Amino acid sequence: MKDKKSIADNFGACPIPLDNYPHIVMAHGGGGQMTNQLIKEMFNPVFNNQFLAAEHDGAVFDSAGKKAAFTTDSYVIQPLFFPGGDIGSLAVYGTVNDLCMCGAVPAYISLSLIIEEGLPMQNLWRIINSIQKAAERTGVQIVTGDTKVIDKTGGGGLYINTSGIGFIEHDLNINPAAIRNGDLILLSGDIGRHGIAVMATREGLEFETELTSDCAPLNDIVQKILTAGIPVHCMRDLTRGGLASALIEIAHSAGNTLEINEETVPVTDAVGGACELLGFDPVYVANEGRFVMFVPQEHARQCLKICRNHAAGESAAVIGRVTEKKQGTVVMKNRIGGQRILHMFSGEQLPRIC
Amino acid sequence: MKDKKSIADNFGACPIPLDNYPHIVMAHGGGGQMTNQLIKEMFNPVFNNQFLAAEHDGAVFDSAGKKAAFTTDSYVIQPLFFPGGDIGSLAVYGTVNDLCMCGAVPAYISLSLIIEEGLPMQNLWRIINSIQKAAERTGVQIVTGDTKVIDKTGGGGLYINTSGIGFIEHDLNINPAAIRNGDLILLSGDIGRHGIAVMATREGLEFETELTSDCAPLNDIVQKILTAGIPVHCMRDLTRGGLASALIEIAHSAGNTLEINEETVPVTDAVGGACELLGFDPVYVANEGRFVMFVPQEHARQCLKICRNHAAGESAAVIGRVTEKKQGTVVMKNRIGGQRILHMFSGEQLPRIC
Repeated sequence: MKDKKSIADNFGACPIPLDNYPHIVMAHGGGGQMTNQLIKEMFNPVFNNQFLAAEHDGAVFDSAGKKAAFTTDSYVIQPLFFPGGDIGSLAVYGTVNDLCMCGAVPAYISLSLIIEEGLPMQNLWRIINSIQKAAERTGVQIVTGDTKVIDKTGGGGLYINTSGIGFIEHDLNINPAAIRNGDLILLSGDIGRHGIAVMATREGLEFETELTSDCAPLNDIVQKILTAGIPVHCMRDLTRGGLASALIEIAHSAGNTLEINEETVPVTDAVGGACELLGFDPVYVANEGRFVMFVPQEHARQCLKICRNHAAGESAAVIGRVTEKKQGTVVMKNRIGGQRILHMFSGEQLPRIC
Repeated sequence: MKDKKSIADNFGACPIPLDNYPHIVMAHGGGGQMTNQLIKEMFNPVFNNQFLAAEHDGAVFDSAGKKAAFTTDSYVIQPLFFPGGDIGSLAVYGTVNDLCMCGAVPAYISLSLIIEEGLPMQNLWRIINSIQKAAERTGVQIVTGDTKVIDKTGGGGLYINTSGIGFIEHDLNINPAAIRNGDLILLSGDIGRHGIAVMATREGLEFETELTSDCAPLNDIVQKILTAGIPVHCMRDLTRGGLASALIEIAHSAGNTLEINEETVPVTDAVGGACELLGFDPVYVANEGRFVMFVPQEHARQCLKICRNHAAGESAAVIGRVTEKKQGTVVMKNRIGGQRILHMFSGEQLPRIC
């Protein structure tokens, strides 16, 4: 009791109800409601600053009159190698993509490895080369790093943190607060392949068609959209928690109601079938090379064309719009006219997926 | 064999002799010879760029004519709380100190948490508050973050990555290549307290005097030295691998021979006694608030005075000098006139210390 009291005296009481959650559970890292609770009720109030308040994929700061973006992500995916990628390329593309979502051109990446004792050296070598290949493909440099080794615990073998710096060459203010009534919502392609591919590998499931992760860099496609002069209001890549969580976060931040037509959301037969079999909703499944964009209606056609002409956006589609309502919710209209409000899932749908 | 061949075809052979080290061992993360081998033979050649070639604590880049520094560190210390600090304050001070060693004023910090399922929520709350307190003390902001949860594996409960950005307000070129024959080597205080304090807590050892970690921020003391106009040639904080490893790394990078007088190196009786008992050499024990500085002889007295007037440098001392020899080694002269060359230790002296 003494210990508990002295903590409370120093910091105030823990904002997470300790009776309900005395310990961290897997769902706190799932990208859903419980992750959000940690961030919004514990981290952001304590660290209290305008960068975190922006609720973006990275922090945008000013240096000598030039805008720069700064972001971080740790990767704990299991297995380390999966169809369509590995933890190394994922760690580079994931951080590059977060910078892109801030409208920045990625430049410098840091690489911090936490290696579990016993990791085969050959696997490390393969991953290091994959990182460099991904860096070359996206025009970034691995400029600083750190290596730690932890005891063998039967964990994943390797955790990677990549942080990144990019520079912003335009005057757009890309964030949820910039979205407007009437904006169209573009999705860059079919969803759910990353999550299903990783899980299938992990669980040894076999499907008729081989599923490959959508893990890919978004720097080139975003750059083409921005240099074409499309006045993008907001972008968000769809990782943990999938399309649904990204849209819900944006709706919450912006206060607008988003209306999505479910039948326009591209889902491959393979992913659709796997989700049906496993009881997942594809809109909640993780992606690593997909994003949504909010653009003024008059620019949507041109933006869609640019996407469809790019390998990273071949199956891009307009999936909905920002309505005049101000409820901060996402309404999904289904194929037969019904509609449902999308909620953050609170459990852990697919753990260790990124 | 097929798999091995296809890897070799793509990337060339792994530069680490696989017969000797087919798997990662704890010593690869110890900050000694084996960590160095990974960095110099595997990582740096693959990522091949001038930032890594500088072999500094961080990368210094130019943005709109302003110099900035970028650094990263992951913290895997066990236990999470130790006399004189915790993983949260350590993660902030460690990254702040790396920026200081580049001569930068720390500004922005990213925070990425990898939490093991089962971590007591109250401990997380305590650590989050410790992070904020350390940030306020050092004038940095936690501007972006990430949270992942991994399965309960009996690991340390929490790993933290902090990356940081700082800005360089002077024209000095602070790095090993800048050291000159005749430079004096200043050490900011007594060594080894962090490593011994952490290990004593971990192993339940009790000493006559309570040992407290030296974990502390260096931004203020470094800023005072730089604003006084001391033309610092090189600085390095003494973390994993201790004073010896830092000096050896600098001597290797610079190609100069460093001469250290062992009797001038401050070691408290408590640390000295503990080291004797445990068979450690204090010059290899980790610190988290100590650094060495290379300054021209004519500025050493003033620099020492600034240090000794500062809480972070009360026991500062001149411990040696850069000689005219170009062997890239560190020669330690002992109390009775003998001398020995310091070598990187190759094993893991004190694991999970930072």
